Amino acid sequence: MGTRCSSDSPAPDPGGNCKNTSGLTFRVTGTSRKSRARTGILSTAHGTIRTPVFMPVGTLGTVKGITPEELRNMGVQILLGNTYHLYLRPGINVIGRFGGLHEFMNWDGPILTDSGGFQVFSLAQMSKITEEGYAFASHIDGSRHLLTPEDTVDIQSCIDSDIMMCLDQCIAYPSDHDSALKALELTTQWAERCIKRKSILNIEKNALFAIIQGGMYPDLRKRSAEELIQLDFPGYAIGGLSVGEPKDLMYEIGESTLALLPDKKPRYVMGVGTPADIVELVESGADMFDCVLPTRNARNGQLFVNSGTINISNARFKTDPRPVDEKCACYTCTNYSRAYLHHLYRNRELLAYRLNTLHNLDYYTRLMEKMRNAIEKDEFPAFKRDFYSKRQPPGKNGQ
Amino acid sequence: MGTRCSSDSPAPDPGGNCKNTSGLTFRVTGTSRKSRARTGILSTAHGTIRTPVFMPVGTLGTVKGITPEELRNMGVQILLGNTYHLYLRPGINVIGRFGGLHEFMNWDGPILTDSGGFQVFSLAQMSKITEEGYAFASHIDGSRHLLTPEDTVDIQSCIDSDIMMCLDQCIAYPSDHDSALKALELTTQWAERCIKRKSILNIEKNALFAIIQGGMYPDLRKRSAEELIQLDFPGYAIGGLSVGEPKDLMYEIGESTLALLPDKKPRYVMGVGTPADIVELVESGADMFDCVLPTRNARNGQLFVNSGTINISNARFKTDPRPVDEKCACYTCTNYSRAYLHHLYRNRELLAYRLNTLHNLDYYTRLMEKMRNAIEKDEFPAFKRDFYSKRQPPGKNGQ
Repeated sequence: MGTRCSSDSPAPDPGGNCKNTSGLTFRVTGTSRKSRARTGILSTAHGTIRTPVFMPVGTLGTVKGITPEELRNMGVQILLGNTYHLYLRPGINVIGRFGGLHEFMNWDGPILTDSGGFQVFSLAQMSKITEEGYAFASHIDGSRHLLTPEDTVDIQSCIDSDIMMCLDQCIAYPSDHDSALKALELTTQWAERCIKRKSILNIEKNALFAIIQGGMYPDLRKRSAEELIQLDFPGYAIGGLSVGEPKDLMYEIGESTLALLPDKKPRYVMGVGTPADIVELVESGADMFDCVLPTRNARNGQLFVNSGTINISNARFKTDPRPVDEKCACYTCTNYSRAYLHHLYRNRELLAYRLNTLHNLDYYTRLMEKMRNAIEKDEFPAFKRDFYSKRQPPGKNGQ
Repeated sequence: MGTRCSSDSPAPDPGGNCKNTSGLTFRVTGTSRKSRARTGILSTAHGTIRTPVFMPVGTLGTVKGITPEELRNMGVQILLGNTYHLYLRPGINVIGRFGGLHEFMNWDGPILTDSGGFQVFSLAQMSKITEEGYAFASHIDGSRHLLTPEDTVDIQSCIDSDIMMCLDQCIAYPSDHDSALKALELTTQWAERCIKRKSILNIEKNALFAIIQGGMYPDLRKRSAEELIQLDFPGYAIGGLSVGEPKDLMYEIGESTLALLPDKKPRYVMGVGTPADIVELVESGADMFDCVLPTRNARNGQLFVNSGTINISNARFKTDPRPVDEKCACYTCTNYSRAYLHHLYRNRELLAYRLNTLHNLDYYTRLMEKMRNAIEKDEFPAFKRDFYSKRQPPGKNGQ
């Protein structure tokens, strides 16, 4: 670990080459005086990202139905890939031949990959978790695999992720204090092993973030944060949120955990969430988000609008000539009526999934843009009031 | 029928307004001295089309997975819609509210619709065919409908088809001479009723083509052509081909029937076909084609290349970094490898269907373009030699 250093720390040896070992720099560019919300610029090996940012999920090396050009054109800045899925399909041997996921999927912007831990936890037929790692059976063909912290770094390095995530131990909600404690201890151990592996691989361009665990226990979240901050990562994520807990509890744990993280480093809330979740957590100081909601819900016919959501399959849209949202300038709203989208969706036409997804991703992208603008102008509270004035308050099925 | 006239005929009454009653003009712009192949310009209410032309099938008001912009950008000139499908879903009341299919689906170029007869014949649970029309039960919900020649004109007028087709009676292959005779007689009767209905509706912008039937019997094809030519349509289609007959027979009946049709009017071979089928029938003088092959096969992983087809799901493509076709300039070949397409297809990713369809439609569009260029330069025989030099001859599974 002697060569590891964070871009936020002064270079320990001006003659050495470890200054960029983290593969990433982060600069806070704006703060909100009345909240912890802030804007920033995150620089990665594949370009810069303005935060707060939402990362669309491209599970298998594709944001379902959408081309990289379309993502770029709507202002998507960074994609999330799932290490577990990519490891199983197409496999690292395939992605490796292309020098990484960027080339394979034709996306030249930044990519963040999760560590695979959450998918093993939620999808695989897990057989055993030990200090060594996760031993699991593939959810596709039942084949048996072992995923160690070292493996996840190797895999994400092969993917050439701009931001790699440490392997963490996820726990169910609710979990007792003792289970949550054990999981966070293992997560810290694994984080150290990930750092070590990255150092051995000598991959400066691929940044590595740690994941704070600790369940819904503030004392454990604090302990996890302290242990991982000690290891001086260039960015920190909060895992284990949005796993079935009440909204209020998620916001509370999110807010208190975010408050523990260094101001100078990006803060990423994993797997979150609804538009309201994101607004709440941006207010608490979060910089990065990912979630399947805009893409998955699009494929289920649920479209995001300022008042919440509409379900395009609803019969009331059958002859509705208006766009999904009259103020939306996305490709879908510019060109198609609710009646057409209703028709496509009811008939399970491929174009339905595509047009719905374009709208929802545009909604999320514009939401983040509006928040960045509001923070830069120090008008975040006004933005938030306006956001909620059009919908139900959080915790009451509001989105 | 007093106001009916063809744009190819001199206006019978210079003071009248029936000159454009056909909604269409056609001009032959190039001929091949060594074959019957020709180029032309077909002008419709929604724009002009250079022939020979291939019309992608947009069954339900969408070419599956592809936007109108993408079709335009690749050079697609005209789409085909299915009257039967559109009548059932979304229904004419919905399309009518948008003033037609163009506005509903956001395609401002020409649209041709079939009459619905073929789909009733092949998809619906047909209960009865009488002089009146087809009485059938919907393949979706079993609801009962009656489709008369008048209805098909009304429906296609509501769709605002640039080219409407007369209701015809389709027959199975093989059919005996007597059945084929009865079907062609009914088809002629129905064609007269369609003309009458169009005249009553006074829809000048919507051209109406007749469909030659007669099965695989040259004498009946001749009779059908003579009867329908007598009615002076602005264009003629050949129906009842590619219904299971041997290739050689299809080419033979296609060629002999095309030879019966007026030189000054567009000739359309319905539901055909493979690239080789199209080359053969262009050589015999056909101007227009439609077929589900490029789009449907794309969704089955079969991609058209100069040597025939490849199946992208084949394991040999797993790590292949080359595009589908190294000489192809389509969006898919410009940006993606066979390995990526293989990965997408094997995982049933939405983007697979889209990228495969873009490639196949580009292949067909370029094929037509090459033929038009060859005919204009009077080099069609050289084009055809070159086409076959890369693949198996027709009739031997060649495409």
